[in-house]
Amino acid sequence: MYVSLKDVAERAGVSFQTASKVLNRRSGVVSVATRERIERAARELGYVPNALARGLVRRDSLTVGILADDFSDVALSRFVVAVQRTVERQGHAALVATTAPESAAPLRRLQEYRVNGIVVVAPSIEEDAGFGEYLRGPLPAVTLNHIAGGGVPAVGSDHRQTGALAAEHLVGLGHRAIGTVTGPTGRRVVGSRLGGFRATLDAAGVGLPEHRVLATEWDAGSAAAATHRLLDADPGITAIFAHNDTMAFGVLAALRVRGVPVPQACSVVGCDDAPLAGFAAPPLTTVRVPFEETGARAAELLLARIRGEDIPPRDLLPVHLVVRASTAPPP
Amino acid sequence: MYVSLKDVAERAGVSFQTASKVLNRRSGVVSVATRERIERAARELGYVPNALARGLVRRDSLTVGILADDFSDVALSRFVVAVQRTVERQGHAALVATTAPESAAPLRRLQEYRVNGIVVVAPSIEEDAGFGEYLRGPLPAVTLNHIAGGGVPAVGSDHRQTGALAAEHLVGLGHRAIGTVTGPTGRRVVGSRLGGFRATLDAAGVGLPEHRVLATEWDAGSAAAATHRLLDADPGITAIFAHNDTMAFGVLAALRVRGVPVPQACSVVGCDDAPLAGFAAPPLTTVRVPFEETGARAAELLLARIRGEDIPPRDLLPVHLVVRASTAPPP
Repeated sequence: MYVSLKDVAERAGVSFQTASKVLNRRSGVVSVATRERIERAARELGYVPNALARGLVRRDSLTVGILADDFSDVALSRFVVAVQRTVERQGHAALVATTAPESAAPLRRLQEYRVNGIVVVAPSIEEDAGFGEYLRGPLPAVTLNHIAGGGVPAVGSDHRQTGALAAEHLVGLGHRAIGTVTGPTGRRVVGSRLGGFRATLDAAGVGLPEHRVLATEWDAGSAAAATHRLLDADPGITAIFAHNDTMAFGVLAALRVRGVPVPQACSVVGCDDAPLAGFAAPPLTTVRVPFEETGARAAELLLARIRGEDIPPRDLLPVHLVVRASTAPPP
Repeated sequence: MYVSLKDVAERAGVSFQTASKVLNRRSGVVSVATRERIERAARELGYVPNALARGLVRRDSLTVGILADDFSDVALSRFVVAVQRTVERQGHAALVATTAPESAAPLRRLQEYRVNGIVVVAPSIEEDAGFGEYLRGPLPAVTLNHIAGGGVPAVGSDHRQTGALAAEHLVGLGHRAIGTVTGPTGRRVVGSRLGGFRATLDAAGVGLPEHRVLATEWDAGSAAAATHRLLDADPGITAIFAHNDTMAFGVLAALRVRGVPVPQACSVVGCDDAPLAGFAAPPLTTVRVPFEETGARAAELLLARIRGEDIPPRDLLPVHLVVRASTAPPP
């Protein structure tokens, strides 16, 4: 199916070794006439260099492994695409392997392809000690999520700041009965966002009693159900912070079903600045997470690390509040 | 960084060739004792077989190339993930390369990695004749989009049927002044959806005059702007079909801005059944496109073709209407 080096050598009337010297740029002396004959034969036959064979002898094109959780999750897919584009734009290749629960197979596959380094976009295994140990080994890695035991260069956005910005905005509008619908308990990003949110409300003397915090999954349906439970338990809540914009769509849908006008009777703040955030009803106030910049930075740092450069142990990109129409002073 | 076969051979006290016979399963006789010594050495050193080296001698694990347009597009990402998961679940690897305008680099990269076949998820190059010619060559391929010149096995959903279902639903509700906001002119999927939509309206005696058709981009912002132009030109329109759900969010936002209640004054039908469709305001009536099933089918057919099996030239998966709250009889 592929034209081999042997085919080219035969066409050019030279030995395999000579063809390899020219086309795989191995060392050795070849006359200009022979070199030209080989290059012409390669062109005529449509020879494409074999990265697999070259991978054994040289390293000018790198293969970056991306170990990612199921990236039909929109947020993760934005990270993965950004990593991949940055890698490809620099002439390298990206091999994506999807994590599977309790399975070393995806990591093994990346190893089998002799990737030169790994970018991790896999919060589902952030507490896996064995995985952390592996990543502290000789293979260069950069991670977008927490790694058990640390010691792996990390790139991300400031999740505590995300929670703090949402809280500051709502307190600034005058809200005092503020609730939140968070991502799954145990996820580091959830702990950080909730921590920054709570610290800011505490500092403002508003506080965040436990019955105003409901942990659920990252999807809109779960967030809608959580919103009903939150308001059944405390109908006095005048503002809700959702841990991502998909969840915020669920919060808005639940409030609509309950006949609670947004933002007149209840404000909603999301997180991510997803492409549809501005098209929610009403357009969603949210905290912008720099997905593309974060993925690109991770790829650049990994390539630098592969080249032997020093890179920072931790690189947090700033987040900022995007105010739209889903927030207003309390009634 | 990686333990080499040479390291294993040294540890086991055997020749490189003998270690290779055992660990790369090349043919040749090796005593049981030697085999065990080599396998123990490999285990102790943490040797991982090199897929790149093995790729030159055997083919039990396949590498499937996925040539995809920018898959931060949610619909494309669902296809890509489905292809990738199906390939990985069967123990093979998937290498994704992203198309770039007028560039052969992504295809070349896949070739360099000696992929055993290609799944194409790249409507942006559906009219590229050279690309079509390449795909009719010896490398097995399956495509999810149109290929210039045809001749490549295709998997997809029935786009004409998608348009027909939307039209039937609206006509059945009694609408007579129906408009549509379509994807970019020139895309095959757009032509098919519009064709099915128009044929059904024509058959019902309702018709689709040109001023009720507005072509735009796939995003919500473009669709919102198109909706304003559509209604400025013909305020009598009582129903709008959008070519994907993201666009439908834009249509709904524009109607909200204009103070047109949905579905009382204007019905909206989307396309895809995106995860957020049920959380639109109001919940969106849409045509469900089987993304996951389509991607999985494409991967399975490609693997079958690589194994030398015959596969159908064209496999269209059914679509169906999902009725929610954004459609009702005209006022």
